[in-house]
Amino acid sequence: MTGEPGGSGFSRRHLLFGGAAAAGAGAAVALGASAAIRAGNGAAGAVADGAGGAVSATAVGEAIVPFHGVHQAGVETPPQSHAVFIALDLLPEVDAAALRRMLRVLTDDAARVTQGRAPLADTEPELAAVPARLTVTFGFGPGLVARAGAETPSWLRPLPPFGIDRLEPRWNDGDLLLQIGADDAVTVSHAARMLLKDARSFAAVRWTQRGFRRAAGSEPEGRTMRNLFGQLDGTVNPKPGTADFDELVWSMGEPAWMAGGTSMVLRRIAMDLDGWDRVDRPGREASVGRTLASGAPLTGEREHDEPDFEALGPVGFPVIPDFSHLRRSRSDVPGERIYRRGYNYDEAPAGPSVSDAGLLFASFQADVDRQYVPIQRRLDELDLLNEWTTPVGSAVFAIPPGCAEGGYIGDTLV
Amino acid sequence: MTGEPGGSGFSRRHLLFGGAAAAGAGAAVALGASAAIRAGNGAAGAVADGAGGAVSATAVGEAIVPFHGVHQAGVETPPQSHAVFIALDLLPEVDAAALRRMLRVLTDDAARVTQGRAPLADTEPELAAVPARLTVTFGFGPGLVARAGAETPSWLRPLPPFGIDRLEPRWNDGDLLLQIGADDAVTVSHAARMLLKDARSFAAVRWTQRGFRRAAGSEPEGRTMRNLFGQLDGTVNPKPGTADFDELVWSMGEPAWMAGGTSMVLRRIAMDLDGWDRVDRPGREASVGRTLASGAPLTGEREHDEPDFEALGPVGFPVIPDFSHLRRSRSDVPGERIYRRGYNYDEAPAGPSVSDAGLLFASFQADVDRQYVPIQRRLDELDLLNEWTTPVGSAVFAIPPGCAEGGYIGDTLV
Repeated sequence: MTGEPGGSGFSRRHLLFGGAAAAGAGAAVALGASAAIRAGNGAAGAVADGAGGAVSATAVGEAIVPFHGVHQAGVETPPQSHAVFIALDLLPEVDAAALRRMLRVLTDDAARVTQGRAPLADTEPELAAVPARLTVTFGFGPGLVARAGAETPSWLRPLPPFGIDRLEPRWNDGDLLLQIGADDAVTVSHAARMLLKDARSFAAVRWTQRGFRRAAGSEPEGRTMRNLFGQLDGTVNPKPGTADFDELVWSMGEPAWMAGGTSMVLRRIAMDLDGWDRVDRPGREASVGRTLASGAPLTGEREHDEPDFEALGPVGFPVIPDFSHLRRSRSDVPGERIYRRGYNYDEAPAGPSVSDAGLLFASFQADVDRQYVPIQRRLDELDLLNEWTTPVGSAVFAIPPGCAEGGYIGDTLV
Repeated sequence: MTGEPGGSGFSRRHLLFGGAAAAGAGAAVALGASAAIRAGNGAAGAVADGAGGAVSATAVGEAIVPFHGVHQAGVETPPQSHAVFIALDLLPEVDAAALRRMLRVLTDDAARVTQGRAPLADTEPELAAVPARLTVTFGFGPGLVARAGAETPSWLRPLPPFGIDRLEPRWNDGDLLLQIGADDAVTVSHAARMLLKDARSFAAVRWTQRGFRRAAGSEPEGRTMRNLFGQLDGTVNPKPGTADFDELVWSMGEPAWMAGGTSMVLRRIAMDLDGWDRVDRPGREASVGRTLASGAPLTGEREHDEPDFEALGPVGFPVIPDFSHLRRSRSDVPGERIYRRGYNYDEAPAGPSVSDAGLLFASFQADVDRQYVPIQRRLDELDLLNEWTTPVGSAVFAIPPGCAEGGYIGDTLV
């Protein structure tokens, strides 16, 4: 009903304000206000005082992640507490020239809003004043790459079907991905709206998926996330900034426009919390292969201890069961590894269940087919956790490299 | 599909784990694990180091709000960054005795989980270890009070219809309200699930509404919230802890079981962000009666300056327009005031709009009819903001007083 102004109100509004101001004037006012707010906040950027891990009371809001660079932000960036993943489909008339215009506009928006500056057309510039480590990461589906007339990476296509999949089309695929993350939900909401407003003459929203992790300041930095099953999730992740990470994650340039980019697999995995409740603690630990309290392998004491798959229990069975998630997800091939950067989701349930919750599994890897698919095949064949987890959505995107100031995301492509 | 285990998997699971453990044993393990985690975290409670507003790096997660007391927590508590409002309907067979059992169980859950201790039946006790100022506030709809056979407060019924309402039944009313708030979304999710699991033999979920505000550490404490229109929202709120607040908010005991309680009005107000975008900045400020940047009345300089409704502009019209939200919401009767504690919402949009967003307007007042209704009547008659805002949900709840240790929420009622 909001889209249908009543007769009297409509005329009253027009009488008073005469519709929207000229774009130029509106933007000037907006920028002025934004600058005033930032000045009032004092210096920009994160303000750690270095005293025993203490931080200033507004450090969460002021922290900024650089936008420009060799790689896009939002991959190596330590995961923020909130993220929204939005897939769009290009409108039929969008050709390579229009694509270029769209990517320029969206890059400009992202470059500003991530630095705590209001984008040019921002009508709520005050909401841009809290960057809170905001990152905007762009991904390209096969449809966008085709529209650009460029070479498609060999792995850029829907994943092969897996036996455990119960995919719903409403969570699959897409031409353009926006991954928007920040330590503040208002910041994420405002940034998403800004980008979608500028995208809508080029593309329509296909799906929106929101996720969350622990808040900034809830737990010591660098702690592995617990998912809604209570498991530590992502223990064996490669560490950003290491040579190992660089090799696993960043593309060497196949095709050339992808050099410095990566790929994202996004799987929406429904978790049957009601079913999981009926499993006792030893059962849960056997299915995962780790203790729940510490996340240590069942053969170890601490989270990062190396598992001993040969160890046998008192009656001769392996301590880490053959069907455990830990065992099935581990490969002997060193290159068959991925970087995970997932989020929990928890939506309002429909029907008698009291939860509609799960994991937005997001992984980055240089090559989906060489790294992600073999792991997922093993888990598909046999993984006890499959009892309580169901993939309901799946999408693969090429994450192009970052851009320099003056450039735009995708400028190696189109 | 998650609810339908495949044949082989089902038998495998039962073979290995034999279903759920006995409740007693499970709970013992759970509590042990939780205690271990808390010991690892060091001292509980908020840890402000007193040095220039700096806080320890895990202070957000460790902060605890007391559960027991004269009033329930979650009213005077400074709003946390995340909240979920859940309404349940009692099952037909629930009588006064069952109601008492339900309230005892849920009170026990809330008393534990808000203090960072896992509830007795918690199957993911590790998730309880980050209280992050968690509060659980219980509200009673007219159906629950009738089921208890107690006297119903005169104002405990659906609000009178307003001309601007476009209410959808899926967001209205309910027998039991849970307002669950914390500075960490994982904490909110886990607490909600714990309570709903224990509620489900007594009541079914009617609706779930999630909201967010700025994150802890994003802005200086005590700053007024900006809604998604970019407006400062709640400037004239009474201040918790003052005599003014006590008089406006807490019931003196009409009926007797409500002494120390209050009422909550929850309105889901859809905000037409696309329409708002077409209004220029002077138009927005005229419709609100305040400047957007500072929130000051159009006749003042600072947010909390008293508005001058008599001041005239150069051509003789009032500086603060007669139809402005500021003017229409202000009463000459001092008692016609409420305490607002709302949240933003932002859901995945359906159709061509790029937003489905708005405000979970939550207000507390001793008497809905005397305090809330007159304000809303004036706004209904004439308020420029009505052009871009539409109430789509409405509910009224009695918030009973708090309870002492050993008691339960609702023990003055049933």
